[in-house]
Amino acid sequence: MNSFGRMFRVSIYGESHGKGVGVLIDGCPAGIPVDKEDFMGDLSRRKAGGAGSTKRIESDEPVIISGICDGHTTGAPINIHFVNGDTRSKDYSLFKRMPRPGHSDFVAMKKYNGNNDIRGGGHFSGRLTLALVAAGVIAKKILAGSKLNAKLVQVGKTDVRNASEKEIDKILTHVQENGDSIGGIVQFTGVDLPVGLGEPFFGSVESHISSMIFSVPAVKGIEFGAGFEGVKLKGSQHNDSIIDASGKTLTNNNGGINGGISNGNPVVFRVVIKPTPSIYIPQETFNFEEGKMDTLQINGRHDACIAKRATVVVENAAAIALADLFLINKSSQI
Amino acid sequence: MNSFGRMFRVSIYGESHGKGVGVLIDGCPAGIPVDKEDFMGDLSRRKAGGAGSTKRIESDEPVIISGICDGHTTGAPINIHFVNGDTRSKDYSLFKRMPRPGHSDFVAMKKYNGNNDIRGGGHFSGRLTLALVAAGVIAKKILAGSKLNAKLVQVGKTDVRNASEKEIDKILTHVQENGDSIGGIVQFTGVDLPVGLGEPFFGSVESHISSMIFSVPAVKGIEFGAGFEGVKLKGSQHNDSIIDASGKTLTNNNGGINGGISNGNPVVFRVVIKPTPSIYIPQETFNFEEGKMDTLQINGRHDACIAKRATVVVENAAAIALADLFLINKSSQI
Amino acid sequence: MNSFGRMFRVSIYGESHGKGVGVLIDGCPAGIPVDKEDFMGDLSRRKAGGAGSTKRIESDEPVIISGICDGHTTGAPINIHFVNGDTRSKDYSLFKRMPRPGHSDFVAMKKYNGNNDIRGGGHFSGRLTLALVAAGVIAKKILAGSKLNAKLVQVGKTDVRNASEKEIDKILTHVQENGDSIGGIVQFTGVDLPVGLGEPFFGSVESHISSMIFSVPAVKGIEFGAGFEGVKLKGSQHNDSIIDASGKTLTNNNGGINGGISNGNPVVFRVVIKPTPSIYIPQETFNFEEGKMDTLQINGRHDACIAKRATVVVENAAAIALADLFLINKSSQI
Amino acid sequence: MNSFGRMFRVSIYGESHGKGVGVLIDGCPAGIPVDKEDFMGDLSRRKAGGAGSTKRIESDEPVIISGICDGHTTGAPINIHFVNGDTRSKDYSLFKRMPRPGHSDFVAMKKYNGNNDIRGGGHFSGRLTLALVAAGVIAKKILAGSKLNAKLVQVGKTDVRNASEKEIDKILTHVQENGDSIGGIVQFTGVDLPVGLGEPFFGSVESHISSMIFSVPAVKGIEFGAGFEGVKLKGSQHNDSIIDASGKTLTNNNGGINGGISNGNPVVFRVVIKPTPSIYIPQETFNFEEGKMDTLQINGRHDACIAKRATVVVENAAAIALADLFLINKSSQI
Repeated sequence: MNSFGRMFRVSIYGESHGKGVGVLIDGCPAGIPVDKEDFMGDLSRRKAGGAGSTKRIESDEPVIISGICDGHTTGAPINIHFVNGDTRSKDYSLFKRMPRPGHSDFVAMKKYNGNNDIRGGGHFSGRLTLALVAAGVIAKKILAGSKLNAKLVQVGKTDVRNASEKEIDKILTHVQENGDSIGGIVQFTGVDLPVGLGEPFFGSVESHISSMIFSVPAVKGIEFGAGFEGVKLKGSQHNDSIIDASGKTLTNNNGGINGGISNGNPVVFRVVIKPTPSIYIPQETFNFEEGKMDTLQINGRHDACIAKRATVVVENAAAIALADLFLINKSSQI
Repeated sequence: MNSFGRMFRVSIYGESHGKGVGVLIDGCPAGIPVDKEDFMGDLSRRKAGGAGSTKRIESDEPVIISGICDGHTTGAPINIHFVNGDTRSKDYSLFKRMPRPGHSDFVAMKKYNGNNDIRGGGHFSGRLTLALVAAGVIAKKILAGSKLNAKLVQVGKTDVRNASEKEIDKILTHVQENGDSIGGIVQFTGVDLPVGLGEPFFGSVESHISSMIFSVPAVKGIEFGAGFEGVKLKGSQHNDSIIDASGKTLTNNNGGINGGISNGNPVVFRVVIKPTPSIYIPQETFNFEEGKMDTLQINGRHDACIAKRATVVVENAAAIALADLFLINKSSQI
Repeated sequence: MNSFGRMFRVSIYGESHGKGVGVLIDGCPAGIPVDKEDFMGDLSRRKAGGAGSTKRIESDEPVIISGICDGHTTGAPINIHFVNGDTRSKDYSLFKRMPRPGHSDFVAMKKYNGNNDIRGGGHFSGRLTLALVAAGVIAKKILAGSKLNAKLVQVGKTDVRNASEKEIDKILTHVQENGDSIGGIVQFTGVDLPVGLGEPFFGSVESHISSMIFSVPAVKGIEFGAGFEGVKLKGSQHNDSIIDASGKTLTNNNGGINGGISNGNPVVFRVVIKPTPSIYIPQETFNFEEGKMDTLQINGRHDACIAKRATVVVENAAAIALADLFLINKSSQI
Repeated sequence: MNSFGRMFRVSIYGESHGKGVGVLIDGCPAGIPVDKEDFMGDLSRRKAGGAGSTKRIESDEPVIISGICDGHTTGAPINIHFVNGDTRSKDYSLFKRMPRPGHSDFVAMKKYNGNNDIRGGGHFSGRLTLALVAAGVIAKKILAGSKLNAKLVQVGKTDVRNASEKEIDKILTHVQENGDSIGGIVQFTGVDLPVGLGEPFFGSVESHISSMIFSVPAVKGIEFGAGFEGVKLKGSQHNDSIIDASGKTLTNNNGGINGGISNGNPVVFRVVIKPTPSIYIPQETFNFEEGKMDTLQINGRHDACIAKRATVVVENAAAIALADLFLINKSSQI
């Protein structure tokens, strides 16, 4: 299922080591100004670079194939494509024999009877998140009155907000030098979103956002507002008192969402991103060719903390889900 | 959006104080034996009763309207209906003036311009989860070879697995006597699920399950496998080594899912359920009629810990999502 | 697939001889006045009675189960149910042995491995069109500024517009007395529909309407504007010249639709409805139990010309499709 | 709505005078052999050339962007792209002032508030049918046991089957020399399709095929089996007697479909394709700039009988719809 959304409908395609990756957007209203430059900021936030980062550097230049003409959306499907450049030919048959722990190698082979493109993870590659970032740039334009932002708040056991950038870099460099990897927590905040986004039950803001966010590789958990910590509160503490006619609340334990519908307060959620499964430390795992345990040594180029680059992906993925809910809600207001 | 699923498609309807609630299931294969009795076990698990429970007791008898004939599914849409019985006429205009904190009252009024049925929460009521339980009973039959189970593992700050039932009851009774409420954590485990369920990205097992689970009222977070704790692990610790040809792993930090696809190990997730927002303790909140803060006193009948009754809902909601992925996967195996 | 539509989403359920039939509507805007009486006009147009009509007379009283409160839509899913009353217990095993020619008996048995409810055609029954009529009543309210109408224009070889009602009744009575049946052509006209309904390609007005109309049992063809006769025109004759700034055209060979999008002129289509397959004349067909040809004698109560009663079904089915396109189009206008 | 299908899901993109057009296919099973050469036969059938044909000749070479690796499908989304080559820069502002009769110019401007790409019809161009042909080639591979074919059976008033190729060419040349255009009727036949394709009501074979076929530009009508002529038959004549245990029928007035489900007999339908609206004969139509009637003279390169090239489009579009129903049906067989 490569598509997400009902009105702002996003479909992705491509493989890590194929011709390229991209996104097809249907249902985007006509007349929205979009320029190639508009993508550069967010694409650059996603780019590799800095401490703990992969050595594979792609130019990641968006090619607008369709749906944008004379600097604005036309109402027709928008296809934005990214050519794959810096791929390295190598023998991936190792991962067919010895699927990488924590990776899609084993399940992909089983699900597709060995027909999957395993090079660089194929269609399961994190490179596909380029498509989400590009679509999110347009989604944010639909939500022009709102401000969406995601930031990295934890790296391994370290709270990023209580540490200097230098300390974080040191942690990442250390992990990378050890050939290991480390996870992170990303926090999203969306302010000035309209009241009334989301639909009861299956179209709840939480349902729609979580469904989208779990499509980002390596995400293993999401919590809104007080989230898991909220279990420790009594109802009298967790309830957010409304304090004015706009619906503003004193606290925001519900993360801006009641009954699945946005209440005008900041939409807040946190996402945990597991440590990159591709590590250089040798791992004991099953060799399917020889039918016994064996030592796997991974080479290639990988991030030590994918959470860093995933931050803008989470932000833009949430924007896609919210833009879709925005258009859905509009259609029911007559 | 009252529908969920692509092949095993579930739609819900009804209100807390209307004629009844129910579920319409489309895409259920023909020939599955279904008897009214089959629903009774799970419906009874969902029923009120015991410490901290609401005084509203419904018979919750399923009425099979369509799609089942001579004790088996026919292939036609299945409609299972529950008549509302024990509703109490009363004046709900209070909640239009003073929307309950933590509740859907405010957002529903805004979204539907005051046309929503506010009695007992209307369509936002937890009573709608009857529909999910009923559909889940049939979903489990589609997943006949697998075993799905959810249980309550935490109540407030207390780990249920380290406490006697008596202690838990004491906590719940105490909270209820105080007119307050308390949250909980539910853990789901699905064993012997086939390898290959789920689709890359937007159809990942995590996306599909979380989308469904967040439609259960009061859920505010979900985590798979090691979840948020996993952030503290290095990649070398988090990776689950494969140890035999079936794909069995030594650890299960990924909760049985890699790249969004089930890997044959137990699918494990935890869900946090916030304390019931309906409490008897007076609350300071906004009075929209008078345009100032005021004290809200809620009456009515409510659960002190909805997490208890939500357990079977989580189990069956997950079954729906997994049955849908099961049928989707089957269609692509040629 | 029991659902139709993206924003105004209609799902149907029920069987001819089960508990009842009904419709579930999701995505209907809140605040639309709906009263039980509103359904009576169209339901009565669909009712049996008059020349050539079945002897099965149902009260067809709509029961509003959900989604309507205090005389208006609430924004929650609307379930309208019709109880089955006048069903006759009889032995339907004959049609399992000898599937009726032109009927769903054979394909239903094959598709559902004999698990289908064959009584009265089960879920394939024309009785399900009650659901379409009821949903269409609400759809028309969404399209409040437009006027939709369908009428019977041909019965067998006779143009209804050139014949008196008496002559038509005579034809129908004659056919029924012979134990035979006869087809008809229904013409739909929708005036004052907005310009811009429909989406390019798969969401074209023609695609959406035809998809819906072919779900009406016995429909075997549809043509828009000049339709099949248009093949005889040259482009210079078929093209509809625009004659004013509103987009009004001199002719309407395109049936109010260009490039799949409504152009403001009347949307016009014609539908052919085959003669009712249930006839009393003995038919030679295959006996699956005995493995040889045999004579089938059908009893039961049937219409001699289902096209008569199908007229309002076509009108309301088209209304559903158009209301959905109306809401879809609204969401993209920002 | 640029997407069609539930399991074999086809999305199209592109514009006539933009970078290119293409198709994205999701849900295609893995392991199907697909080679670039496989597309050439059907693409060549669609190509311009011969009597009455446009002078715009494109190479129409398919570029496989994703989803196919080592000569077979991988299970990931398949993107097939066609670069636009032979486009001619010219001033299209004429069609903004004077929308072409019978064309999408007027509705596109209205629907998209003038933001649509009007060059060569933009996204409304018949060039998009390249995408349908390419997807149909893969759809036919899914339906490997069946044989699908469409052919032109009527041109204007002439039955193609009773005329020599020379006579048809003469008609077309004559029309083209006059600067006019002419319509056609295409007949589709699908043999050896399995019994049981299609779902009751909204997923009927007729609904699914017609929905798809009306997305082909210029189609204005579709009829199955006896179609509109069937109105002249009595039920006793129209009913197709079953004559053997496979479900074979003596006649095929139902076009291989009962109750919306395929019955194993040939699926037969006819489609009327209107005369190309782009003609060279001067047309009187509205000048929106000057607010009065005016004479429109179209230049450019156009087909005199688009029905000729539409034949393979109809064939492959039907294949897409049938492949989708095939996969849907498979998922419900447990």
